Amino acid sequence: MESAGLTWVEANISVCPEVVAQAVRVLETVSAASKDFELKLEEHPFGGAAIDAVGEPLPASTLKACQEADAILMGSIGGPKWGVDAKVRPEPGLLTLRKTLGLYANIRPASFASESLLENTPLRPEIAKDVDMIVVRELIGGLYFGKRKEANVEPDIGTAWDNMIYSEEEIQRITRVAAQIALTSNPPMEIHSIDKANVLACSRLWRKTVTETLTKEYPQIKFDHQLVDSTAMVMVANPRKLNGVILTENLFGDILSDQSSVIPGSLGLLPSASMNGAPSQPSEDFKPTLGLYEPIHGSAPDIAGKGIANPIGTILSAAMLLRYSLGLAKPATAIEDAVRKVLDLEKDGGYGLRTADLGGNVCTVELGDKVVEVL
Amino acid sequence: MESAGLTWVEANISVCPEVVAQAVRVLETVSAASKDFELKLEEHPFGGAAIDAVGEPLPASTLKACQEADAILMGSIGGPKWGVDAKVRPEPGLLTLRKTLGLYANIRPASFASESLLENTPLRPEIAKDVDMIVVRELIGGLYFGKRKEANVEPDIGTAWDNMIYSEEEIQRITRVAAQIALTSNPPMEIHSIDKANVLACSRLWRKTVTETLTKEYPQIKFDHQLVDSTAMVMVANPRKLNGVILTENLFGDILSDQSSVIPGSLGLLPSASMNGAPSQPSEDFKPTLGLYEPIHGSAPDIAGKGIANPIGTILSAAMLLRYSLGLAKPATAIEDAVRKVLDLEKDGGYGLRTADLGGNVCTVELGDKVVEVL
Ligand SMILES: CC(C)[C@H](C(=O)O)[C@@H](O)C(=O)O
Ligand SMILES: CC(C)[C@H](C(=O)O)[C@@H](O)C(=O)O
Repeated sequence: MESAGLTWVEANISVCPEVVAQAVRVLETVSAASKDFELKLEEHPFGGAAIDAVGEPLPASTLKACQEADAILMGSIGGPKWGVDAKVRPEPGLLTLRKTLGLYANIRPASFASESLLENTPLRPEIAKDVDMIVVRELIGGLYFGKRKEANVEPDIGTAWDNMIYSEEEIQRITRVAAQIALTSNPPMEIHSIDKANVLACSRLWRKTVTETLTKEYPQIKFDHQLVDSTAMVMVANPRKLNGVILTENLFGDILSDQSSVIPGSLGLLPSASMNGAPSQPSEDFKPTLGLYEPIHGSAPDIAGKGIANPIGTILSAAMLLRYSLGLAKPATAIEDAVRKVLDLEKDGGYGLRTADLGGNVCTVELGDKVVEVL
Repeated sequence: MESAGLTWVEANISVCPEVVAQAVRVLETVSAASKDFELKLEEHPFGGAAIDAVGEPLPASTLKACQEADAILMGSIGGPKWGVDAKVRPEPGLLTLRKTLGLYANIRPASFASESLLENTPLRPEIAKDVDMIVVRELIGGLYFGKRKEANVEPDIGTAWDNMIYSEEEIQRITRVAAQIALTSNPPMEIHSIDKANVLACSRLWRKTVTETLTKEYPQIKFDHQLVDSTAMVMVANPRKLNGVILTENLFGDILSDQSSVIPGSLGLLPSASMNGAPSQPSEDFKPTLGLYEPIHGSAPDIAGKGIANPIGTILSAAMLLRYSLGLAKPATAIEDAVRKVLDLEKDGGYGLRTADLGGNVCTVELGDKVVEVL
């Protein structure tokens, strides 16, 4: 591949500019160092920042740039300024972006970037040790995008409803993404499909379709079905039991991926991808798979602008972007290795640098500097 | 009060008969020891046991007995024999029972029955210490009881849907239950109302109605609103932040109450109540509040019938029954104190008895014996 167009949608709010800047430096570094590819970066307003600038969360110019890009790197979109009660909120912009770009597969790994981070998990270390889960969440269906009725509209004042809806096709395609991820993991993973089939019709269709798709198309993958309530329990009591790919629908995935993300010790470390297909596999007729990459942490208004936020979640999102959307596995691994080295304790041959969220006092830029240096 | 009619619905499956038998002994003991009240116990088939016996989970005779009772004590209703694929399943029986009896308030405390149980929590003890949450879940609305369409029905083969629906009245009455529990706790608790108001219309009505009801009717109670995804995160990372009453709708409550229940170290210890009103307050014109009481653990097929299951969850459910439905606070406290004494370590002046789930080797009947003896 000669060049990879890359749109960088900046969410110019709270901690985001600081951490996104570090990830961009890292991308520029790997791009400059390579003769095989060149990244073109563009910046566009989105979310709260766009509301402040032009009065809407997703300006047409930003949407167009995203549609033309091969991948999108994003900060966090919210902040207390644009809360649930605000007139114009950032969430509809995010939901429209996901839907318009067809980003149906949300992928969120929850595993330890470094052994030494076990000291930061809220679980007993022996319970959290070796947790290695990847949540694959259906992102543009279900309760999020079904019809709904607000309570304050005639004729039924005082009653609200939301519709959860799924088609066989929607379930098939997300199942295939989960299967690709399970197969290309090293070693291959099993799949845990999560639903509420003892109550919901959508979940019964989910269970049936996942079983049929995996049995027919991926007979080599081991899988099981579990109920969402029991999964939330097991994820705290014995999370290793859920090691593998956790495949689930939009709302359950929202809850379970947030729950899973605190197990590896710091939210600040975790990346995520929202894609309109399965991760790219390098091949003869390679085509990029459009994806939006963002750290899973929020806009952290308490520390925003202080220069102490952890940029690793965004840097690892950039690595994921290279691997999943652009098929550039080598520089992705180089970034991940550099991050590990920067985080690892000295005795493991690393620098042991830590931002405040991990009990250290290294600031955002220093951590970025070190990752770039190691690269 | 002279006599309290009490229907005991036996779910004659798996661990249930064993543990329910111990709770019944405890109830009989407090009833025999008191001159102020007398309990009448009846046994009726329900759930899996009823399917096996008469082909349906909720026989008309059982429903009638429940409607005429002041309170219902139940075992766990399921088991692998009546799984999601079975033709006749126990869940519809449970959902019909809840709906017919109007049991709209599900109440599940998650706190440590005894300090010494901190050693069993999957969290770091310093993180789980002093956790004291009570989940109040709306139980007969939302996605559980909205209209739904199975995928295999014409004309839209391949598409399923479920409707989440809430009225202002439904939200008001569960908010009042949460408020009563918050106020009568010692010391009074705050309320955390959980929703997904940044996406769902039902959640926006929820948030508005909770705010209005609490502000108008219970100005003395402190409350806040939190999103369900973030709550699932905080419940692992820093659960004490959620100390208080966690007020939420049916599906979120299903997930969060299961998640919360593993924090205090053993599922086997926790009781639950499903009521058609707020817990009874002893008063001049006392009337029982109908409630169904059950341990929160499942039917534990792996240990069923071995006589080693933990009966404490069911015994504490019986205590909850006395206090919440019958207004009998004194015998309820006596049972809870006895349980604490039986569980506490010797150095705390207790017996330190433990069933297998807590790493001990005391069997079900022995534990029941000891509670009765201490009483
Ligand atoms: C901001 C919100 C609409 C969003 C969601 O619920 O999908 C967020 O929680 C997420 O998980 O990306
Ligand atoms: C058995 C099932 C239908 C039920 C529910 O989802 O309400 C159970 O999980 C519970 O929480 O009591």
